[in-house]
Amino acid sequence: MEMNIALLPGDGIGPEVIAQAVKVIQAVAKKFGHTIHFETAPVGAAAIDLTGDPYPESTHAVCLRADAVLFGAIGDPKYDNDPKAKVRPEQGLLAMRKKLGLFANVRPTFTFPSLVHKSPLKLDRVDGVDFVFFRELTGGIYFGEPRGRNEQGTKAFDTNVYTKEEITRLARMGFEAAQKRRKLLTCVDKANVLATSRLWRETVQELAPEYPDVKVEYEFVDAVAMRLIQWPKAYDVLITENLFGDILTDEASVISGSMGLMPSASLGTENKLFEPIHGSYPQAAGKDIANPLGTILSAAMMFDYAFDLKDEAAAISDVVNRSLSEGIVTEDIADGAKAYKTSEVGDWLAENL
Amino acid sequence: MEMNIALLPGDGIGPEVIAQAVKVIQAVAKKFGHTIHFETAPVGAAAIDLTGDPYPESTHAVCLRADAVLFGAIGDPKYDNDPKAKVRPEQGLLAMRKKLGLFANVRPTFTFPSLVHKSPLKLDRVDGVDFVFFRELTGGIYFGEPRGRNEQGTKAFDTNVYTKEEITRLARMGFEAAQKRRKLLTCVDKANVLATSRLWRETVQELAPEYPDVKVEYEFVDAVAMRLIQWPKAYDVLITENLFGDILTDEASVISGSMGLMPSASLGTENKLFEPIHGSYPQAAGKDIANPLGTILSAAMMFDYAFDLKDEAAAISDVVNRSLSEGIVTEDIADGAKAYKTSEVGDWLAENL
Ligand SMILES: CC(C)[C@H](C(=O)O)[C@@H](O)C(=O)O
Ligand SMILES: CC(C)[C@H](C(=O)O)[C@@H](O)C(=O)O
Repeated sequence: MEMNIALLPGDGIGPEVIAQAVKVIQAVAKKFGHTIHFETAPVGAAAIDLTGDPYPESTHAVCLRADAVLFGAIGDPKYDNDPKAKVRPEQGLLAMRKKLGLFANVRPTFTFPSLVHKSPLKLDRVDGVDFVFFRELTGGIYFGEPRGRNEQGTKAFDTNVYTKEEITRLARMGFEAAQKRRKLLTCVDKANVLATSRLWRETVQELAPEYPDVKVEYEFVDAVAMRLIQWPKAYDVLITENLFGDILTDEASVISGSMGLMPSASLGTENKLFEPIHGSYPQAAGKDIANPLGTILSAAMMFDYAFDLKDEAAAISDVVNRSLSEGIVTEDIADGAKAYKTSEVGDWLAENL
Repeated sequence: MEMNIALLPGDGIGPEVIAQAVKVIQAVAKKFGHTIHFETAPVGAAAIDLTGDPYPESTHAVCLRADAVLFGAIGDPKYDNDPKAKVRPEQGLLAMRKKLGLFANVRPTFTFPSLVHKSPLKLDRVDGVDFVFFRELTGGIYFGEPRGRNEQGTKAFDTNVYTKEEITRLARMGFEAAQKRRKLLTCVDKANVLATSRLWRETVQELAPEYPDVKVEYEFVDAVAMRLIQWPKAYDVLITENLFGDILTDEASVISGSMGLMPSASLGTENKLFEPIHGSYPQAAGKDIANPLGTILSAAMMFDYAFDLKDEAAAISDVVNRSLSEGIVTEDIADGAKAYKTSEVGDWLAENL
């Protein structure tokens, strides 16, 4: 198969971790006989520095002509804590999601036997956790209008808005995922307060009869924030709006003890993007110490979700598992044992795939 | 001192736990020579059943003429999962907060040595945790207009709105609390996305020089959702908007391992309300098994915050600590040892105060 992959390394450790993923993807291509074309483009602070725009048209063009986008991380401390900054790297991320129509952010949380002891939760709570969030990514209060200030600047406002269509297409993805998993779907909302949430709940209730094999539960966002810590094994597939998803997927990301390894996919009808859930980690940039496994497992998700190549995806997961059990890992998970460099981990994985 | 206390037992286990708090308050009054007048009024599903209104005018009048309100819990399963229900108990709660001007919800999280082992977190993460949230309670997306649906019902919207005044009065409470504590204030927002959050951050930045002894940190809500689990000891005082506060205070409530004991205060300029953070727990209603300590510790907060009577507050905390170390506790925290009834715990506390 011939594939065009756009590489958007972004900021901080982004370029280093993407470089390792490229090694692994090339090894997969060789092993399975695929031809892969890479095209690299800037995004985030890196793109602001070059063009003044965190998601320039030229980068968008690269993404549009690719079959899948592999993304590193964005964010630079020089843009933080400055509420008046005119351009922020995050705007690039939001523009990219919107322009590529990436309406579903898929965030699995699962555990690795060799890392679960790093979880802040007690072992019995977290061992074997396996759920996946479907977060709506191009709607809600992130994009709703009107937003801004009154003339005097003494009052600010944002608008949360959802249409039935937006909810339906996200919910269907959740239902379909649940059918392939443990057949439990949790709709997370705040229907006791928000009009948007009541539309979410209604829409999901209307769809439910089409998926008779899926059990649907409705929970308030505050209750889920609790139960994710108390008993995360209770969940299978969760669907929710953009803002709740932002908060809850980040909360979820720390429970497995292996945040640096968690991948994600952002899916649209036309485009598909894959990225590790960790940030740009600027303190580590350029030091060859960042953990590349989140990006490499995102590449595995790419083979699965973008190209439906399950064997290729499994080959990556397998070699990652081997690197973990053989201790070929970066310092963040080396636990006092010998730590390998980012580039060494990438090399080992590519060679041993 | 003479005090008028409004009792709003509400739904589920509310009446039972309020009854125990009354015993303890009466014992405090006797010991310290105060005269206390109680007036009881319905709220929530209980009030809907009686009057059709979850926060009737008559109940509001009782609250207005009281010096402090002690609240049980509201919520009844018969109103759940019905997005089209015309009146919901929660509307009573929201109306009450708004009409009494209770703009600051104060939610401490701390641990009890005898209960910390019940935390879902590992002991080293949670032992000695001690922080307090100041959640804005009468603004934001809970009350912002416009909210509702388009004509065809295919689109729903909510408005998040904050004024500088609303942010300022809440933030000042946080700064003042920080001055009396470990002098760290964390402003929790989503300033990288929301216009309202940028006004929050700006306003707090403007106030900060007035409190030079307080260190101020700004964190995004998604990052706080993570760090609350990873390292909750990092926090001292947190201030945030209504919706973020709803989610994060509930997340925080489970980390101490003693959710059934956590009290809260909702403060306004004229009125003050105190309530346990737990819900109405309908399955336990009428069984004399509910844990009354959250309500009793809310009564302690009442003596402190509403009447500035620190010795009275301390007397209640002390006797609660004694009941814990002597095992005079309800089944939820008895840990296999003899469990006492709700009413027995109340009696013991009143007698031993
Ligand atoms: C950087 C920020 C705008 C972004 C978001 O809120 O969506 C991030 O937190 C995420 O979850 O990808
Ligand atoms: C019942 C509900 C409306 C309420 C809220 O969201 O404020 C509750 O969750 C709370 O935190 O007191």
